[in-house]
Amino acid sequence: MTETAPRPAAYTPTDRTIPTRSRERASYDRETVHSILDEGYMCHLGFVRDGAPVVLPTLYGRVGERLYVHGSTGSRPLRMAGQADPGLPVCLTVTHVDGLVLARSAFHHSINYRSVVIHGTAHQVTDPEEKREALDAIVDHVVPGRSYDSRPANAKELSATAVLRLDLGEVSAKSRTGGPNDEPEDLGLPHWTGVVPLRKGYGTPVPADDLAPDVELPDYLTTL
Amino acid sequence: MTETAPRPAAYTPTDRTIPTRSRERASYDRETVHSILDEGYMCHLGFVRDGAPVVLPTLYGRVGERLYVHGSTGSRPLRMAGQADPGLPVCLTVTHVDGLVLARSAFHHSINYRSVVIHGTAHQVTDPEEKREALDAIVDHVVPGRSYDSRPANAKELSATAVLRLDLGEVSAKSRTGGPNDEPEDLGLPHWTGVVPLRKGYGTPVPADDLAPDVELPDYLTTL
Repeated sequence: MTETAPRPAAYTPTDRTIPTRSRERASYDRETVHSILDEGYMCHLGFVRDGAPVVLPTLYGRVGERLYVHGSTGSRPLRMAGQADPGLPVCLTVTHVDGLVLARSAFHHSINYRSVVIHGTAHQVTDPEEKREALDAIVDHVVPGRSYDSRPANAKELSATAVLRLDLGEVSAKSRTGGPNDEPEDLGLPHWTGVVPLRKGYGTPVPADDLAPDVELPDYLTTL
Repeated sequence: MTETAPRPAAYTPTDRTIPTRSRERASYDRETVHSILDEGYMCHLGFVRDGAPVVLPTLYGRVGERLYVHGSTGSRPLRMAGQADPGLPVCLTVTHVDGLVLARSAFHHSINYRSVVIHGTAHQVTDPEEKREALDAIVDHVVPGRSYDSRPANAKELSATAVLRLDLGEVSAKSRTGGPNDEPEDLGLPHWTGVVPLRKGYGTPVPADDLAPDVELPDYLTTL
């Protein structure tokens, strides 16, 4: 066995990942960041095009300290990352909304949420093995276990798909939990105050029109 | 009554709002754009800071053809919009995920979604009446009707809150609906295929610890 240095439990804060406000809501803890990323599959990817910002929703997957997004080789950010040297500066953000915080005052209304913001430079993945692993991770983020129950990409599909890698280096989590923080002088106001939790769930799976009737719903979908 | 020119039913496509791929998924229809925006309250706001992209989740509200976001006067994008002349170039994106599309092939896995992307320049709102209207719209996006059942912002709170306005001009919607699009040669594969719908809902409201017991849950929360 080769010895490796222990991985620090937290990411190092930088000027970009230290918030100007509500610093108590920020976290650089590696496990916290991973757990927020692993609970989702849709991120918002920001990049700069002709000097202006662009923000696009896209799927992602995590493998260790690497985040992957994919797209057609013809799509803008993936073309730009391929052309750019040394890579495409991006900001990738994942947000979960957990509850609506209703205070007595309009001013103190808020949202309970957990988010991760990653700053870095995205690079196109060229190694075929890494590309396959990344695509599996993206599919498995959407439905855990699904990559084992579908036909893997063939050579033609792989060459039509571009994958971007973004290393988890300059990264922070931010979250808000708990009830409203009303001003002392507002406590007697007659408005209902508290938190409305948000629930996410899945409806009944709808089979494709051309699905053979003997193909049963797999376990990983009944337990989703 | 003054006569006004009829508002066009669609936004004018531009180089930035015409997708490089899947153009059939794009729409510039005004009502489609409004309905996607009005169904949500959380957007991802992109801007450029020191040449690099930044993407932050934030609440928004719509009033006609104007979108508003708010924040502390000390927060970065709001400070930048205040300093910048003539405004802060932004990209504001709203995304709803409607279903997971599971194809027989990994390559054809997808997401049913609806999104709106707005490109433009954000300006700080200085008119007090517009600022109040914007803040009401943001609260009412989260919970319709809530702005009438909370204490409005006072002068001190208003001055601590900055509001950015982004006009709906360069805007497009994009959506995917329907089942998977498998390759003909994959139709005999044994994998389950179809769509898993996503459901969003609300849990039971949790009253604040200091809520007086005689304050009842308002109707607009029981019907949320």
